[in-house]
Amino acid sequence: MSGWSRAALEALDRDDPLARFRAGFQLREGLLYLDGNSLGALPQRTMSRLEQTVRGEWGEGLITSWLGAEWITAPRRVGDKIAALLGAAPGEVIVADSTSVNLFKAITAALSLRPERGVILSEAGNFPTDVYMMQGIAAFSGGRVRAETVAPEAVLARLDSDVAVLVLTQVHYKSGAVRDMAAVTRRAHEAGALVVWDLSHSAGALPVDLNGADADFAVGCGYKFLNGGPGAPAYIFVAQRHQAAAMPVLSGWMGHAEPFAFEDDYRPAAGIERFLCGTPSVLAMTALECGIDLMAEADMAAIRAKSLALGRVFMDLMDEQCAGLGFTLVSPRDDAQRGSQIAYAHPHGYGIMQALKERGLIGDFRAPDVLRFGLTPLYLRYADMLDAVSLIREVCEARAWDDPRWKVRAAVT
Amino acid sequence: MSGWSRAALEALDRDDPLARFRAGFQLREGLLYLDGNSLGALPQRTMSRLEQTVRGEWGEGLITSWLGAEWITAPRRVGDKIAALLGAAPGEVIVADSTSVNLFKAITAALSLRPERGVILSEAGNFPTDVYMMQGIAAFSGGRVRAETVAPEAVLARLDSDVAVLVLTQVHYKSGAVRDMAAVTRRAHEAGALVVWDLSHSAGALPVDLNGADADFAVGCGYKFLNGGPGAPAYIFVAQRHQAAAMPVLSGWMGHAEPFAFEDDYRPAAGIERFLCGTPSVLAMTALECGIDLMAEADMAAIRAKSLALGRVFMDLMDEQCAGLGFTLVSPRDDAQRGSQIAYAHPHGYGIMQALKERGLIGDFRAPDVLRFGLTPLYLRYADMLDAVSLIREVCEARAWDDPRWKVRAAVT
Repeated sequence: MSGWSRAALEALDRDDPLARFRAGFQLREGLLYLDGNSLGALPQRTMSRLEQTVRGEWGEGLITSWLGAEWITAPRRVGDKIAALLGAAPGEVIVADSTSVNLFKAITAALSLRPERGVILSEAGNFPTDVYMMQGIAAFSGGRVRAETVAPEAVLARLDSDVAVLVLTQVHYKSGAVRDMAAVTRRAHEAGALVVWDLSHSAGALPVDLNGADADFAVGCGYKFLNGGPGAPAYIFVAQRHQAAAMPVLSGWMGHAEPFAFEDDYRPAAGIERFLCGTPSVLAMTALECGIDLMAEADMAAIRAKSLALGRVFMDLMDEQCAGLGFTLVSPRDDAQRGSQIAYAHPHGYGIMQALKERGLIGDFRAPDVLRFGLTPLYLRYADMLDAVSLIREVCEARAWDDPRWKVRAAVT
Repeated sequence: MSGWSRAALEALDRDDPLARFRAGFQLREGLLYLDGNSLGALPQRTMSRLEQTVRGEWGEGLITSWLGAEWITAPRRVGDKIAALLGAAPGEVIVADSTSVNLFKAITAALSLRPERGVILSEAGNFPTDVYMMQGIAAFSGGRVRAETVAPEAVLARLDSDVAVLVLTQVHYKSGAVRDMAAVTRRAHEAGALVVWDLSHSAGALPVDLNGADADFAVGCGYKFLNGGPGAPAYIFVAQRHQAAAMPVLSGWMGHAEPFAFEDDYRPAAGIERFLCGTPSVLAMTALECGIDLMAEADMAAIRAKSLALGRVFMDLMDEQCAGLGFTLVSPRDDAQRGSQIAYAHPHGYGIMQALKERGLIGDFRAPDVLRFGLTPLYLRYADMLDAVSLIREVCEARAWDDPRWKVRAAVT
């Protein structure tokens, strides 16, 4: 209960070292976009860069642009830029495919390093695709490996000599709770297991230190805090020490030691390139690189500081203005345990979010009852938190969730 | 030896029912682009459509465009348009991932339908990624399945009760030779095997009749004759009769029966959607759809007729102008057996192609000695064949391959 006044919040905005970044995004005035953790906003620079790629590189350069415009090395070049955001070294990250497909590569590669173990472990309530990919691998293994989930608090105790690989998301997609990457990795290694980290909700939102945590594998998506565009390509991290032995099951030609030798037998590339598979989309890669370049200009410590401050302001205002309106905080209040979103449960969560969207506040809803508000320090302002919470109060006081249009849930919200 | 005069060829161009399509592509005057079988040219409409997707749908609509701009149904919508080009029914084709990843899905799904059989069969010299993906599957299976290649002419004889799935490319990437899809599929079915067809060099180049051939699975790429842009998304066909039983090993959230229910266990979607995996790139999908829409406006019989005629003219002119210069025809001369490219072997193939590129003729080179000339009826003219062959003769007569710059082969040519 802090009594944040508009004047106080506007003062924070004036002093914000990241304030200049907002102008780098296309955002219509009046829109409160608190869903950048689902799809990041459009960087202004992306359209002109895409036009150059389409008209110049594709249209004029045609096939010669694979070398001439350096398309062929883009997965590695953009991967190296992402590595710099994640505490990884050049040559440890490559851009390719989707997060789901990279999960498959990372989990199967980890299994190839622990052939005597049969369990892929995760927590119940992890982001669905992470667990689904585990289940697909287990089904295909013909009984050789098993996919298992346990309650979040039981994960560490479950680590025994059967567990080959632990699959966890660093920042939980629903609650925004942060796992201690270094501590969990250490415990897993003590038990002889490897870890695959999903960084989809952490990359670009908080400092990540993969090598500081002695991480093995990681994956993540490009379209959330990295602002790479809808369905942007994903990336995969493989620690240098594992690269020579980790075999990619998805052994496509782009991961071959010499893709254009057209040899009959697969020979994996020496380094991270073996985790490429098919031909990557150059247009999607171009947009992703624009988002990454913009992110790289910002100081990650400043991003984290502002993200946490935005969260504190938002929660303070919710406490103050929405007390007694039925909200239960789902995210950790403790800064150290919170990512860059604030989630509340509310029995009318779905209807509330629909009503908010109609009034210009975009967040999202996750079944059964969670409202998520993503905090993107590059383009949100402190004063936006006040506008958002005021709107939430208005909607609840007017019981605007009670609208026949919203009795049936849409597929994507 | 027909003595094609420029006047005769220009007359063919005047009468060409597809002539109007050339203006729909960005192609600089004077360029002879005979590599549309590797990367199709840029449709003029693509840039403005992409701008609408980027600035309007992503920039303004943001997350709401998944429903509002129908991004979520695009893989199926574009898949249905591709199905119409391939003799498939709506709901049998979906756009997703790369050709390599779709090969993995198709082969593993076929294996799931033939659990008692252990061989994935292909021909030696098939496009590398097809065989590499087979090898990755075999390696991961822990001995349960085996990847095997035999000489092209030995494929049918090898079909026995061990073979679960036969993987073939309809139009060979190097020679352009066409396999008889219906006959091969019939023979495979008689032996109890399923077939995965790679259509990368046939879709958009010649009429394909998947259901007429009783095909099981097929995959193909979007960036060749379909003009979907560099690294465009690929597609997968699964015959209606197999969809309920074929299990996708790559069980990502977009293939779930209810992706946004965020359930803990994977339940595959009822139809072709189960062959989706992760979140697709909307930008890449947009460019692909532009290429498909343009292709759909053309008559496939007219495309095939012109493709074959361009090939005959090209070979006639080569016979006439380049006799004794060291070229050996690799492609079948018989129309019925030839796809939409003409390949020649030449001991100085690499240097010749480099010299041609410098002079404005773009084809490509495939090790060890093959020059490929792709024939794309939507934007090539009959007179271009004369210009191309004249240039080939010039380069050879000048021994222009003998240039120190071309002693070392570039990675991508």
